[in-house]
Amino acid sequence: MVDSVRLDELSWPEFAAKIAAGAPVLLPLGSTEQHGPHLPLNVDVVLPTGVCERIAREVGGLVAPTVAYGCKSMPRSGGGEQFPGTLSVDAHTFALVLRDVIRNLARQGVRRLVVVNGHYENLWPSVEGLDLARREIARDGITDFTVMRLEYWDFAQRATLESIFPAGFPGIELEHASLMETSLMLVLRPDLVEMDKVPSDGPATFPPYDRFPVPDDFGLPPSGVLAVATGSTTEKGEALMADYVTHISAAIRKEFGL
Amino acid sequence: MVDSVRLDELSWPEFAAKIAAGAPVLLPLGSTEQHGPHLPLNVDVVLPTGVCERIAREVGGLVAPTVAYGCKSMPRSGGGEQFPGTLSVDAHTFALVLRDVIRNLARQGVRRLVVVNGHYENLWPSVEGLDLARREIARDGITDFTVMRLEYWDFAQRATLESIFPAGFPGIELEHASLMETSLMLVLRPDLVEMDKVPSDGPATFPPYDRFPVPDDFGLPPSGVLAVATGSTTEKGEALMADYVTHISAAIRKEFGL
Amino acid sequence: MVDSVRLDELSWPEFAAKIAAGAPVLLPLGSTEQHGPHLPLNVDVVLPTGVCERIAREVGGLVAPTVAYGCKSMPRSGGGEQFPGTLSVDAHTFALVLRDVIRNLARQGVRRLVVVNGHYENLWPSVEGLDLARREIARDGITDFTVMRLEYWDFAQRATLESIFPAGFPGIELEHASLMETSLMLVLRPDLVEMDKVPSDGPATFPPYDRFPVPDDFGLPPSGVLAVATGSTTEKGEALMADYVTHISAAIRKEFGL
Amino acid sequence: MVDSVRLDELSWPEFAAKIAAGAPVLLPLGSTEQHGPHLPLNVDVVLPTGVCERIAREVGGLVAPTVAYGCKSMPRSGGGEQFPGTLSVDAHTFALVLRDVIRNLARQGVRRLVVVNGHYENLWPSVEGLDLARREIARDGITDFTVMRLEYWDFAQRATLESIFPAGFPGIELEHASLMETSLMLVLRPDLVEMDKVPSDGPATFPPYDRFPVPDDFGLPPSGVLAVATGSTTEKGEALMADYVTHISAAIRKEFGL
Amino acid sequence: MVDSVRLDELSWPEFAAKIAAGAPVLLPLGSTEQHGPHLPLNVDVVLPTGVCERIAREVGGLVAPTVAYGCKSMPRSGGGEQFPGTLSVDAHTFALVLRDVIRNLARQGVRRLVVVNGHYENLWPSVEGLDLARREIARDGITDFTVMRLEYWDFAQRATLESIFPAGFPGIELEHASLMETSLMLVLRPDLVEMDKVPSDGPATFPPYDRFPVPDDFGLPPSGVLAVATGSTTEKGEALMADYVTHISAAIRKEFGL
Amino acid sequence: MVDSVRLDELSWPEFAAKIAAGAPVLLPLGSTEQHGPHLPLNVDVVLPTGVCERIAREVGGLVAPTVAYGCKSMPRSGGGEQFPGTLSVDAHTFALVLRDVIRNLARQGVRRLVVVNGHYENLWPSVEGLDLARREIARDGITDFTVMRLEYWDFAQRATLESIFPAGFPGIELEHASLMETSLMLVLRPDLVEMDKVPSDGPATFPPYDRFPVPDDFGLPPSGVLAVATGSTTEKGEALMADYVTHISAAIRKEFGL
Repeated sequence: MVDSVRLDELSWPEFAAKIAAGAPVLLPLGSTEQHGPHLPLNVDVVLPTGVCERIAREVGGLVAPTVAYGCKSMPRSGGGEQFPGTLSVDAHTFALVLRDVIRNLARQGVRRLVVVNGHYENLWPSVEGLDLARREIARDGITDFTVMRLEYWDFAQRATLESIFPAGFPGIELEHASLMETSLMLVLRPDLVEMDKVPSDGPATFPPYDRFPVPDDFGLPPSGVLAVATGSTTEKGEALMADYVTHISAAIRKEFGL
Repeated sequence: MVDSVRLDELSWPEFAAKIAAGAPVLLPLGSTEQHGPHLPLNVDVVLPTGVCERIAREVGGLVAPTVAYGCKSMPRSGGGEQFPGTLSVDAHTFALVLRDVIRNLARQGVRRLVVVNGHYENLWPSVEGLDLARREIARDGITDFTVMRLEYWDFAQRATLESIFPAGFPGIELEHASLMETSLMLVLRPDLVEMDKVPSDGPATFPPYDRFPVPDDFGLPPSGVLAVATGSTTEKGEALMADYVTHISAAIRKEFGL
Repeated sequence: MVDSVRLDELSWPEFAAKIAAGAPVLLPLGSTEQHGPHLPLNVDVVLPTGVCERIAREVGGLVAPTVAYGCKSMPRSGGGEQFPGTLSVDAHTFALVLRDVIRNLARQGVRRLVVVNGHYENLWPSVEGLDLARREIARDGITDFTVMRLEYWDFAQRATLESIFPAGFPGIELEHASLMETSLMLVLRPDLVEMDKVPSDGPATFPPYDRFPVPDDFGLPPSGVLAVATGSTTEKGEALMADYVTHISAAIRKEFGL
Repeated sequence: MVDSVRLDELSWPEFAAKIAAGAPVLLPLGSTEQHGPHLPLNVDVVLPTGVCERIAREVGGLVAPTVAYGCKSMPRSGGGEQFPGTLSVDAHTFALVLRDVIRNLARQGVRRLVVVNGHYENLWPSVEGLDLARREIARDGITDFTVMRLEYWDFAQRATLESIFPAGFPGIELEHASLMETSLMLVLRPDLVEMDKVPSDGPATFPPYDRFPVPDDFGLPPSGVLAVATGSTTEKGEALMADYVTHISAAIRKEFGL
Repeated sequence: MVDSVRLDELSWPEFAAKIAAGAPVLLPLGSTEQHGPHLPLNVDVVLPTGVCERIAREVGGLVAPTVAYGCKSMPRSGGGEQFPGTLSVDAHTFALVLRDVIRNLARQGVRRLVVVNGHYENLWPSVEGLDLARREIARDGITDFTVMRLEYWDFAQRATLESIFPAGFPGIELEHASLMETSLMLVLRPDLVEMDKVPSDGPATFPPYDRFPVPDDFGLPPSGVLAVATGSTTEKGEALMADYVTHISAAIRKEFGL
Repeated sequence: MVDSVRLDELSWPEFAAKIAAGAPVLLPLGSTEQHGPHLPLNVDVVLPTGVCERIAREVGGLVAPTVAYGCKSMPRSGGGEQFPGTLSVDAHTFALVLRDVIRNLARQGVRRLVVVNGHYENLWPSVEGLDLARREIARDGITDFTVMRLEYWDFAQRATLESIFPAGFPGIELEHASLMETSLMLVLRPDLVEMDKVPSDGPATFPPYDRFPVPDDFGLPPSGVLAVATGSTTEKGEALMADYVTHISAAIRKEFGL
């Protein structure tokens, strides 16, 4: 028997057995989006997938295939659509993907689902997709479907953040392609990190509004790194990862009675 | 610099440089679908991705992230939605994903695209998605966007098929989870193939129509293997792969003048 | 009382009585599409309608109005959208039409439906439309709705094809506007067939992929006749029609217990 | 050469030649809907199609295939969806069909279009579909597309109505399945009219509002004939038809400069 | 406790108490649309809102927030989209708004709803939205939801119209920005009426069809006032308002058994 | 001439003159949503509308009708859909409303638009709607359309927040129906504030994830007030309002060169 927490690496009888036994399913949501000159476009796929795989091992769960194309990048949180390599889908499209995948998971017996978002701009479209799915699931007569939805970064603990950012945490929106994501990539895919290319044109100095077309003086670092990535280390990544895995696993156990 | 044919393993400046130099982009279309008791659910992701990566090396191209959730499985070509682990999206959803991704590829300068389908039921939704994208691309004033769309299995050569199927090729629809896909998986992900679980309840004996609900006597093997997988070997997989890579690469060179 | 197998030629009480008595309904799917210089644009409407009317007489069924605008024509199976007179709708539009019509048939008591497709490119959109309808029908609490979906040409028997194509059957995709469709039109609407205009620029020599824009050397006969229509006769049409009517009727009787 | 005003009875070169010569295209919009016990379900298909064919002969135009499934029937104008045989589509679906067909007509060179509605409830969805199509046509760079949209019954002249309704015209909404439609069917398809089944439970006595579910005392005649059909004659039908053909033809000539 | 018939001026416990007690909810549908040089763009919001508030006081009901953006204005009934200030949404958009709002009203316990339309072109989209909502509500297991849908102007009594239009009522379509609407605005928002700017370029002399682009000789008064507004008075507005309130309230009491 | 900053209180010639003179348009986005037992359901309509009207006077702008039905309320930011009186629309619906309204504003000559959001859950759907509109506007050939999009509360200055929250600002998400919104309502609609009903069951103690169905121990105060409203005063509201008006006006002047 294949030993894997990846749902798609199982055969259908293996999948069926795990679900029948009550295994929770984790669904990672990613994107293909610029992450500065030192990180690959797949950061938002690698990170939630890696987080989910570790959690799945903790809680006896399965990880569904990561949604690789995310909702449209915004200048103030991801640099924006004008960056080469950012390949987004509309929010409506993204929500329909979630609606369909979640509806089918429920149809196939999954009753404990955790949607783990790894791309800021997916937040609301994932709420919409989940809501559409839940409505259909209820109409299909399934009454015991429970689901959690979260952004993995919200599980970093205060002490960890204070240790990583001795000068103060700049806020999660500006962390795009910055110290946290770079450190986590050093844990999961160091072969794709080019620390020698870490730029120094940040942090961003955005005004508190969107403006289109994006003006030249909008405060957006040309590199696409919104805060700073200097100082990223594997150790910092491991500390964050430990927070995510520990605390998301605990929440899953609590909510699903595992 | 990261050395990869995977578009999403590049940073945005690396992506931009490749596209500016005219690199064709290959977009693999997969699915998460039952493939019998001896193969994982990700066969339709692994195969087109593997084919595309080899072609990309041949033609200097890039492989975009594979669309991992495909269009709804049908009993006569994939066993159908009732199999555990088959996680499909609606054709409309699938088409919108393609529309959005292709539109954004064009917006970012890609002028040579190859859509490589690896899941039978994606055929028509990919036609629709491509048509919607081309319409929008033209309205956005881009006039030199060229695109190919293909099912990779159509490039198996007659001699190869005759050699693999000495008793005659049963047709591509019944090849689901059968000899060709199993042999190709032995090439690409042998760790996920469990040859000792190859079933013997096929081949399917479908009537020439769909019927819903699917009746008990519809001729569908309970294993989900529509033809037979016995006799699958790495050598057969390599022979098929060679056909795909050689002839799709040749077609790409011809159409794009590479 | 009006004596007709056409559902729309009945009054509502006549329709109600037939449905209450368990009459199956046949829904033909057509298109308005180029069929060479010797055939009218309505071939894909005339043929499935004619087939359905004959079957309806055999099985005591009713024929619903034919959907006259089909899904977008592709170069390799229908010549493509660039031909004058090809008036297609998007796959999504087509699927919604089917969803709505089928949902309303079920709402009105129809429990035995046969969707009979006569235009190749309608295949997948009709699958989608039927799936959407079945989902809604189930949510509306109807649990005994059964449906068949088929392409009528799949019921030609091997012996008939061998007799009509002594040199071997070129395959159904290339039969567009060719010998089979021309012969069937000679049976159903000989007044619309101009045998003196049968072209000789085929057969098509397509590569195994789509390419857009369609290049000059794509192997597409300028006439739009993908194989050859020479030699079409009423007798060949009658032989095919006999196969369709006999074998589809038999399948309907089997599936619906008539 | 086939001599027909029906667009779909022409071959593609014949269609192309007519359009290149500036022929206007008429697009009839129908429905499949109850029309009382004495008329078939296809009244709203037969009437606008017949009107259009006559007009086409007057103005040198072509008649596109009639849209056979119309927008949802309302109790106060068509009896409502609860009548057996009424097979409607949603307004959104109907509008998309029109959008697609009209866009494709324009793409193929049609510059003079007349949308001729024959089912009351199609009025607004046809406005929407036409608007969506015109928006897309403009974005596709076509600037000289002109279109008329009309309900054919609005061209009955006052003198004709006074002659047919000596006691006063009850208004077009209540004319459903009543004297005008019955008389016109006697002109176009007398074989489908069963005058001996004309009911006498009308006219309807609706309140000035919709109410759902439709209450028992809503004033809806059980027969579905909203006014009265008694007294319908071929002569009255001919008089109305003459009005429609004469005055719509004149309007077309005026607007299109023919 | 806030004393208001406006649903949105209550707190949630106040709303809950009213609904639990069976209060009917009135949902006014408006538009933002040109109404001549003497009236503001919000006429179609002010009038149905004002009518609903008066009715709510009569029947113990609540008025939901008015939908302020209506369906696209047509030349023959509202002057058309080319007028400055006309800000419409597509029919599909409008229908979805209604679907969602009505579904949520039902979900929250509302069982008696009155949709009160104040913009002619909203008529059919409101039918569609209501139908979509009712379908979903039924699938959500709610079986006792009742709803009325009306155009408020249909409740003007014959005697009132004869008194206001001694020369004969020109018909409701041409009443756009004319005597009835102006008189009603004098009742509800006299501060927004500029009687000195009432134009004299009407009435419109439309042909019985739509034509796009709108030609110069279409009979559309440049002012956008389709009939005449001269002679508008508060008294006439009060007479109309009395009709609306009296007769709509009576209908609500009858249908809902209040 | 009517003296109003409300776009919909102008006649069309007045609107046309203002737009031709370059007036920016402000579009407030609201919701109908529970705001505790002491505030009405229309808080999210009243506040952005009031803010916009004040800004419009500062910058010579016009305020378009507020969108009164917002996107679905979430437990952690608005209490959630289960509260009576919360009447939301789907994100897709909301985005289409914005797409249509903004497209029409641009079509009518508006080149300077400010979208002012007053309901947290509208954030992403408004991004989507604006993106869809901008795409269409560009395809319609309009190249000089500029737009800002903002949440008004992001313009509260640090000093003001420190003064209002001496114990530290709890964060904007928890401010739902709390001190800031209550104080602002005391400025704009004191007649709708019932200070004696301010609850004391907050603040919320949410976990860092969504969970559906919402469990009993989710930390949601039964009153729907997520933080605390005690201590709300008109003075605090005026201080916040001054921040919003001053700093949003300044941003508008900067971006639009006014």
